[in-house]
Amino acid sequence: MRETYRVAIAGATGAVGVEFLRLLEYRHFPISELRLLASARSAGKTMRFARREVLVEELTEDSFANIDIAFFSAGGSISKKYAPIAAQAGAVVVDNSSAFRMDPRVPLVIPEINPEAIAGHNGIIANPNCSTIIAIVPLWPIHRQNRIRRLIAATYQAASGAGAAAMEELRESTRAHLEDREYANTVLPHPYAFNLFSHNSKIDPVTGYNEEETKMVQETKKIFGDAEIRISATCVRVPVLRAHSEALTFECERPITPAEVREILAAAPGIKLIDDPVKNYFPMPKDASGQDDVLVGRIRQDISDPSGKSIAMFVAGDQLLKGAALNAVQIAEVMVAKALLQGAAAKR
Amino acid sequence: MRETYRVAIAGATGAVGVEFLRLLEYRHFPISELRLLASARSAGKTMRFARREVLVEELTEDSFANIDIAFFSAGGSISKKYAPIAAQAGAVVVDNSSAFRMDPRVPLVIPEINPEAIAGHNGIIANPNCSTIIAIVPLWPIHRQNRIRRLIAATYQAASGAGAAAMEELRESTRAHLEDREYANTVLPHPYAFNLFSHNSKIDPVTGYNEEETKMVQETKKIFGDAEIRISATCVRVPVLRAHSEALTFECERPITPAEVREILAAAPGIKLIDDPVKNYFPMPKDASGQDDVLVGRIRQDISDPSGKSIAMFVAGDQLLKGAALNAVQIAEVMVAKALLQGAAAKR
Repeated sequence: MRETYRVAIAGATGAVGVEFLRLLEYRHFPISELRLLASARSAGKTMRFARREVLVEELTEDSFANIDIAFFSAGGSISKKYAPIAAQAGAVVVDNSSAFRMDPRVPLVIPEINPEAIAGHNGIIANPNCSTIIAIVPLWPIHRQNRIRRLIAATYQAASGAGAAAMEELRESTRAHLEDREYANTVLPHPYAFNLFSHNSKIDPVTGYNEEETKMVQETKKIFGDAEIRISATCVRVPVLRAHSEALTFECERPITPAEVREILAAAPGIKLIDDPVKNYFPMPKDASGQDDVLVGRIRQDISDPSGKSIAMFVAGDQLLKGAALNAVQIAEVMVAKALLQGAAAKR
Repeated sequence: MRETYRVAIAGATGAVGVEFLRLLEYRHFPISELRLLASARSAGKTMRFARREVLVEELTEDSFANIDIAFFSAGGSISKKYAPIAAQAGAVVVDNSSAFRMDPRVPLVIPEINPEAIAGHNGIIANPNCSTIIAIVPLWPIHRQNRIRRLIAATYQAASGAGAAAMEELRESTRAHLEDREYANTVLPHPYAFNLFSHNSKIDPVTGYNEEETKMVQETKKIFGDAEIRISATCVRVPVLRAHSEALTFECERPITPAEVREILAAAPGIKLIDDPVKNYFPMPKDASGQDDVLVGRIRQDISDPSGKSIAMFVAGDQLLKGAALNAVQIAEVMVAKALLQGAAAKR
């Protein structure tokens, strides 16, 4: 008989939480019990899972008794407080926040890149930042064959990265703009309708980079296991709902051609090549939304590097899926496949 | 008595044409006669200029008799046909299209950078591409002090670059999206509501770069008078109405610091520093719209270049103003100031 697991979702009612429910159902994650956790404000609601209504409970210190795996997506401070409690109670936590990502005791995992890191966990596994995941899923197979020495990234990030309320603010402020009404933004720091702005995370006073950019730099080094890779990112929020795009320019150790990159990516998991210069059809948020794969296109030799070692390309990926919930569920699936989870049956 | 000039605008009813009228009026360009030219479809309309209504006439081969200066913004094919006719008739043409930009007999001018090139014209002066102007107005004063060797640009381009109809398509398709209605795009090749896409210009089958990107490369070399500068651009249309933003990463000949860049830019014309890391306030399209200056911020050392020669920054500029009509009017103003135009008085 197939092993089944008792699963909790902390932050079940958020933009990522909703995707967790959907993914666990349609990917047939072997669930024996599902516990939906949220703030007191959302407790008492029900959410649909596998043709039944599941009650949302308030997240407390007692929420994780007899849980095998707990997905966290309720922000850094909730993770900081409750993830260790869940781990202590015996659950393996897959945490979507940035709280533990750079902790050397916590594996930071993208299953296409470093699934082997999962086994070394101490109760918490961190899910990387969305912009990092979407950039480096396609960079990794290239890096493995011809080490990437330098990456310059400019992001085009969707509202979803700031949560469901930010998506709603984008919709509502745009509606107001079109109707020539005033709109006072409350979720994001700047007007969002037909506007864009530098990512609204804190700027490091020494480097001048914001936290989102610094995450891309540090997390990539940790996930690649390569402290030498040099990265600069410019992270920008654009008025798009749920898929991030990124312009990536990278320099390899040895010369590399667009044809080689295409061949490498065509054989790599988690990637779909959308690269049609004749039809002018390339990765777009509208196509990436709802898709598991990261879309990659505009693959060309970087003409600003005469050494022939540099490539420019453009990627798009669903921020809520591969950028968040899907990657976390894939981590859990690796644990199931490798029997790294204590199943409910085993504990009974 | 102050010299006055007979001015024609070809493409007066377009998005840029409207800005020409506004700029010529509020900058008090010394006009003795204004001729508004457009397609037969728009002929017979009137447009307001200096508290009177001016009739729009159909653009024909006879439109340029007794004109001193003709601003063209009606697309490349109109410029190709009528600009030489206007020049032949004695007008100086300032052309907004790409038709003559790379012609070695035609000066390609940004007044903050190479005003001296104007004098060498043979009847036609070209106005650079909008993305080029907005990137290189702030790069030039840096280049003069510490030569820029390499530039990597990622653009966030507004609808206005594709004209008034594209702006309307962005508004209408977004309205439809919010009302859950279908919308069939007719102006741009891809759905635009809450979406973005690689710039809709032809891709060079050899380089893989699109025309917009290639313009940035070639025009910068011509305007800077520097064939050695190495440039790679990724040009992307974002759902913004009329200001382009760009993430610029550049490498100089010698080490350079963000403080030096700020000092250089603070003293340079046509630029406004908007660079407040504490308030997280940086250049945004909403602030650049309607502004003459290019906004510059996010100035920081590029941490991917350990030599200390590279800087990353973010710029935004009004595509219709400095990116198009304003730059052209400024070219005309230089001609007036340097008495390079045959004034109406002189001809009478």
